[in-house]
Amino acid sequence: MTELPLVVSLGDPAGVGPELIAAAWAAREAELLPPFVVAGGASVLAAAAEARGLSVPVREVFHPAEALDLFGLVLPVLAGADGDYTPGAPDRAGAELALASLSEATELTRAGDCSGLVTAPIAKALLAEVGFDHPGQTEFVAAACGVAAEDAVMMLAGPSLRTVPLTVHVALYAVPGLITRDLIVAKARIVARALAQDFGLAAPRLAIAALNPHAGENGRMGHEDAAIIAPAIAILRAEGIDASGPHPADALFTPRARATYDAALCMYHDQALVPLKALDFDEGVNVTLGLPIVRTSPDHGTAFGIAGKALADPGATIAAIRMAGEIAARRAGIDLG
Amino acid sequence: MTELPLVVSLGDPAGVGPELIAAAWAAREAELLPPFVVAGGASVLAAAAEARGLSVPVREVFHPAEALDLFGLVLPVLAGADGDYTPGAPDRAGAELALASLSEATELTRAGDCSGLVTAPIAKALLAEVGFDHPGQTEFVAAACGVAAEDAVMMLAGPSLRTVPLTVHVALYAVPGLITRDLIVAKARIVARALAQDFGLAAPRLAIAALNPHAGENGRMGHEDAAIIAPAIAILRAEGIDASGPHPADALFTPRARATYDAALCMYHDQALVPLKALDFDEGVNVTLGLPIVRTSPDHGTAFGIAGKALADPGATIAAIRMAGEIAARRAGIDLG
Repeated sequence: MTELPLVVSLGDPAGVGPELIAAAWAAREAELLPPFVVAGGASVLAAAAEARGLSVPVREVFHPAEALDLFGLVLPVLAGADGDYTPGAPDRAGAELALASLSEATELTRAGDCSGLVTAPIAKALLAEVGFDHPGQTEFVAAACGVAAEDAVMMLAGPSLRTVPLTVHVALYAVPGLITRDLIVAKARIVARALAQDFGLAAPRLAIAALNPHAGENGRMGHEDAAIIAPAIAILRAEGIDASGPHPADALFTPRARATYDAALCMYHDQALVPLKALDFDEGVNVTLGLPIVRTSPDHGTAFGIAGKALADPGATIAAIRMAGEIAARRAGIDLG
Repeated sequence: MTELPLVVSLGDPAGVGPELIAAAWAAREAELLPPFVVAGGASVLAAAAEARGLSVPVREVFHPAEALDLFGLVLPVLAGADGDYTPGAPDRAGAELALASLSEATELTRAGDCSGLVTAPIAKALLAEVGFDHPGQTEFVAAACGVAAEDAVMMLAGPSLRTVPLTVHVALYAVPGLITRDLIVAKARIVARALAQDFGLAAPRLAIAALNPHAGENGRMGHEDAAIIAPAIAILRAEGIDASGPHPADALFTPRARATYDAALCMYHDQALVPLKALDFDEGVNVTLGLPIVRTSPDHGTAFGIAGKALADPGATIAAIRMAGEIAARRAGIDLG
């Protein structure tokens, strides 16, 4: 096994990404973080660290493998794209730097030069202005890997809970019409496989949330739970996947209920994200399942309003780096079998 | 001021209600609970206490006021309806007892003989078979008080959070069509008034949740947040009510966000109940706002499956009794003020 570093993309240089990367590096020993290299932005990172009051020596490198030996002493950054640090004031040049960093980091991981990809937050609207034509980083990474967007599944993972939204960025009124048996089965299969391969759970337990309150209460409050979700669960169980439900959502996230499953497949964005952020806000990791590469990110945005003020919590960035390292190690172990 | 006890209805005698009432009484000193009397079910309560291994002397009384002096020494129970204790095996006789207890407890509170009503859980389907023609206890109590069902507002309150669902027991597909400006304004006014009167918050802060993910993101994911919820908030603010939003729901229940408001008005059942039960499951209280009487209940059901097994947690029942006592005291203070 050849050890490789993770690669971290810079994110929007005006957001909290650079300072949190620096903070994660500063906490590398206490947090037992695996080695990582940042894709570009050396002077941004140095300035962000200084603004946060951190002593972070930045060292430019020319190949990811150089990071392994250096990581204990300096923050290794790939020489290349760079720019000014203007926290809270995003602009076109910053968007171009964010995109260059994301592209390079993705390509290095895809090519096998890095063991996994951790993406810092970007501002989608700004990136769209410089030619980024994907709904988000997940779809960009999936496309770069030749994976259809619908096969790249977003999972939110925190210390208390893992959730997967079946539908994501759609209006609530459109959700019931998008819930199909085939979609549930397809996503649940990807989740079950990833929990085994990437999270080391030999027999993962999936809890499938109901769409309607009280799981529809025998059809009195909506038919989808009985007509669509229950048959999907039957198919999954017939395949040997330990899927249960449809569970009334309000009962699914209590401490006792959470102990009974490894991930909850939720029907819509807020059903998955409300409990995750309520319980695990500062440690929530967004991990993309179903890709040939390892990819995680902290589950928060650019937070321009607090960038450069040493207010942003590095917990989610640290958790995303640690989780990427763990998944990469498990995949390497499986490969070496 | 004449001190009065609270009254607690028995709930379904085959559910966890009786044992939790007994457990609350047993914890009265440690929990500093106000005096209460139970409406009927003396032998059920004695048997439930014994099954739970609790030493609870039950004493029948003939008027609520007798409970005040007795409460420290015995569990006072109003003489009247009673029955057998058959935990986990609900039947028609039990439903009749539950209904008799609820009716008597409601009437005593309405008549001013008790300072507030705490209802233990019932099984709606069983009660319907014995002539109960309300969707739930809240509507029954509202009708008994001559209040329209839509003016009796359910609030879920725990140590971490208070939430109010704008719509409750309807299919998810029907929710967007039920969200109107007038409904939001009407419910928010009741909530603001109750937070002041019943919870002692001079200037209550209401956070209004968005319906769609990311609050619709400028109309890209649904129009209701901008077209309906935002104008409702403007009306409330013009009236001097401190209402904010529409807030993306996934960001509304993080620890930092929760510190910025006193109650969250949510658009649908699971949006309100998922975070409450995730954070405060064993201490969640359902309190009915907008009634002339004080009414609370533990935010859980009959739990027939664990009744009689000493497994049910009394935290929510204790919290419901304590909250009813606090609200009653505040209302009495205001009356005397």
